[in-house]
Amino acid sequence: MDRGKSDRKKNSNVDVVAVLETQIDDLSPQVFGYLFEVLLNVGALDVFTQSVMMKKSRPGILLTVICPIDKINVCETIIFRETTTLGIRQTIQKRSILDREIKTVNTQYGEVRVKIASQGTGENTNLINVQPEYEDCATIARKFNEPLTTIQKIVLDAFYSID
Amino acid sequence: MDRGKSDRKKNSNVDVVAVLETQIDDLSPQVFGYLFEVLLNVGALDVFTQSVMMKKSRPGILLTVICPIDKINVCETIIFRETTTLGIRQTIQKRSILDREIKTVNTQYGEVRVKIASQGTGENTNLINVQPEYEDCATIARKFNEPLTTIQKIVLDAFYSID
Amino acid sequence: MDRGKSDRKKNSNVDVVAVLETQIDDLSPQVFGYLFEVLLNVGALDVFTQSVMMKKSRPGILLTVICPIDKINVCETIIFRETTTLGIRQTIQKRSILDREIKTVNTQYGEVRVKIASQGTGENTNLINVQPEYEDCATIARKFNEPLTTIQKIVLDAFYSID
Amino acid sequence: MDRGKSDRKKNSNVDVVAVLETQIDDLSPQVFGYLFEVLLNVGALDVFTQSVMMKKSRPGILLTVICPIDKINVCETIIFRETTTLGIRQTIQKRSILDREIKTVNTQYGEVRVKIASQGTGENTNLINVQPEYEDCATIARKFNEPLTTIQKIVLDAFYSID
Amino acid sequence: MDRGKSDRKKNSNVDVVAVLETQIDDLSPQVFGYLFEVLLNVGALDVFTQSVMMKKSRPGILLTVICPIDKINVCETIIFRETTTLGIRQTIQKRSILDREIKTVNTQYGEVRVKIASQGTGENTNLINVQPEYEDCATIARKFNEPLTTIQKIVLDAFYSID
Amino acid sequence: MDRGKSDRKKNSNVDVVAVLETQIDDLSPQVFGYLFEVLLNVGALDVFTQSVMMKKSRPGILLTVICPIDKINVCETIIFRETTTLGIRQTIQKRSILDREIKTVNTQYGEVRVKIASQGTGENTNLINVQPEYEDCATIARKFNEPLTTIQKIVLDAFYSID
Repeated sequence: MDRGKSDRKKNSNVDVVAVLETQIDDLSPQVFGYLFEVLLNVGALDVFTQSVMMKKSRPGILLTVICPIDKINVCETIIFRETTTLGIRQTIQKRSILDREIKTVNTQYGEVRVKIASQGTGENTNLINVQPEYEDCATIARKFNEPLTTIQKIVLDAFYSID
Repeated sequence: MDRGKSDRKKNSNVDVVAVLETQIDDLSPQVFGYLFEVLLNVGALDVFTQSVMMKKSRPGILLTVICPIDKINVCETIIFRETTTLGIRQTIQKRSILDREIKTVNTQYGEVRVKIASQGTGENTNLINVQPEYEDCATIARKFNEPLTTIQKIVLDAFYSID
Repeated sequence: MDRGKSDRKKNSNVDVVAVLETQIDDLSPQVFGYLFEVLLNVGALDVFTQSVMMKKSRPGILLTVICPIDKINVCETIIFRETTTLGIRQTIQKRSILDREIKTVNTQYGEVRVKIASQGTGENTNLINVQPEYEDCATIARKFNEPLTTIQKIVLDAFYSID
Repeated sequence: MDRGKSDRKKNSNVDVVAVLETQIDDLSPQVFGYLFEVLLNVGALDVFTQSVMMKKSRPGILLTVICPIDKINVCETIIFRETTTLGIRQTIQKRSILDREIKTVNTQYGEVRVKIASQGTGENTNLINVQPEYEDCATIARKFNEPLTTIQKIVLDAFYSID
Repeated sequence: MDRGKSDRKKNSNVDVVAVLETQIDDLSPQVFGYLFEVLLNVGALDVFTQSVMMKKSRPGILLTVICPIDKINVCETIIFRETTTLGIRQTIQKRSILDREIKTVNTQYGEVRVKIASQGTGENTNLINVQPEYEDCATIARKFNEPLTTIQKIVLDAFYSID
Repeated sequence: MDRGKSDRKKNSNVDVVAVLETQIDDLSPQVFGYLFEVLLNVGALDVFTQSVMMKKSRPGILLTVICPIDKINVCETIIFRETTTLGIRQTIQKRSILDREIKTVNTQYGEVRVKIASQGTGENTNLINVQPEYEDCATIARKFNEPLTTIQKIVLDAFYSID
């Protein structure tokens, strides 16, 4: 466990997040891409939509926004402003999270960030999951005209051969 | 095979239908319920939507209309008129269909129609599927405040005990 | 802010709703349309379904019913009666809601209701969203054979030109 | 209410379950079938996935695991181990459940289990729902090459004619 | 029909497109956003995904690419290169399309493009649908911190008041 | 390109498949898992379902079966027998397919099959995609209590280090 430039080590732990939900059946789908952007810009942790079937055969959209407690107000204001919803439901949820750290690894295409999830500390640190940063890989794939999955594999191989 | 008021007997066979498809990402879902109604009124055989994920994170709708060949024009005119689509794709498909007939059976709640699908003729007629008419059962369920599935079961039992 | 026949003005605020959920993998989809009707009739605020993928490759249905706290029992009784579910999960959620009022506007096709969502009071009232009532517009569209979206636009134009 | 081999009778009641949720956008769908198996083996009550639309046009998966409170830790450990998620959200939900009992009925194809849901006790017991066990019926359908729905109907008829 | 800077007028008509489809159950959803970008860059007309339920409880993805006939090869090469699919199905479909033209209208926020769909020519031209360009409106909404739907309404009002 | 036990080398090429489709709104989802099994047993190449939204707010299922031309009849017979559908639509589609071969690689857990997709022949063979067989990996993961994705990575590493 001595790979790359990282020095941050934390235990896995628990936090609390707010989950905002609202189902919408009278808004153009075009708006949702813009809404994602605005919500993530103000601090939402994640945003996603699901298709739902509503009364009168309407194919509605269920919007879910996951955000820190102190971002509830700003997220609700944006949802009311940008959509047609009349009500936003809210639940507070406990969340188990892994330690995450970003390292950079060198590849033939330059430096690429890798997101590492782990549990435990010191000798007992357990690598749970390693993911090359999507945007870094996509940039390289575009530039060198290589398949995205090839770039991701090269980055992972570079990460695991650091030792 | 001598149940109820039916007298129509046909072989299973093959016909041809048109399938119209268009994906829409800039229209309120509210419109689709109305669109279903209008399309079925002019002779569409079936209409359904599916949720699709389009570019720019838009949760679009794929509309599918199944209609007889001679209804292609009227259905396309309605789709262009009621939605924001700029193009409607069309395929002609072969369709294997079962013989269908409607019989009525008597129950303690009155007469109810039953849709019967079968293959073959005369002695060799093979009952494939028997379904009580949804609207008849729903009307009874509403009126007598019984579960819809209870009514459906009573109708099927009445059908199978006719002999 | 002096449009039409309205006189009700309230602040936006917060209420509490119950959310009932159950996933169902052994019931005909036909039943859900009827279930929507029955649940909305007894006071459910909203009802929707989502497709879920369950064990053994079963394409199940997740039913969600949003209702006032005092309607939990009647809604649960109906769900148990009309479906095959063996368990209904329940959460109580805080809900932020906008002030809503219904106004009527005059158009060349007659009076049409408009649902208005706003925040704030008096001079500071902020129009958030204005939606013509779907059923009123659909009735006119059917009768005059005009596109539904055209009717909706005419109603909105009439609303905004009241001043 | 004196059918078959059952002797257990309970009232309908309420319990509490944990609902674990996490959205995943960087894992092969192949893994989910295996994950279902492992989670159900350690005591999850139900597991299902839903498709969600996430940022950057990614068709993600929302995983939901319903489990007893004392299985939260083992289920979370498995989800972290088998998937790429970095966080698992948790809610505790009240659940209304029907009394369930398994009876066996005799058919021309041998014994088949039937799951019976009911409310109330003794004279006031109310049969809510009766479902032949899927696996038993599927085994018979495979062996005798009969349609699955035919076997299910035969089992139900045998159940209701026991008296 | 004398609005703005347009001078192009065509009849509605019919063309032919290729529809490429493949279902994928062993690829990270992350790849699809990148795939959309690459396919649209080489000339695909539209790209979308749908969630499908495959064998062994796998939540797969059905990819659909609509492209001109002369782009079939390049699109197939990209799909094979970027995904794990082993086979791509192809159908040629007739497509009814409306005349489309882009006009620009002046608003208080500057020029905005509007996409206009119409049928017929000269005196008989029939405006079917008018849509403000999403990207233009989103740029203004971001810059002036106004709701996207407000900008879209302002653009439409400007368009209809040109005469 | 001299890895493992393979000796089969073919060019990528084109074949023709039948696509059978039917939308179903009156059948229990439970049946679909069984239907998948039966259809794949008689020679269907792939089977999947999608959720569709049908008239009267019914959350229906669109069943798609991809099969060789000479399996159309047996697949249609099974669909009519096991489901409630009254009609099955059929299209014949061209399909571009990669060369596929199965190799076995040795790992610390024993032999595992790997599916290899490639284009071209001899010196010009181009490895497109390499996937460890899911069932082999799942068997090992179960037996040794290791994460499935870990086993898949070990197999791929073994494959690429053969030379």
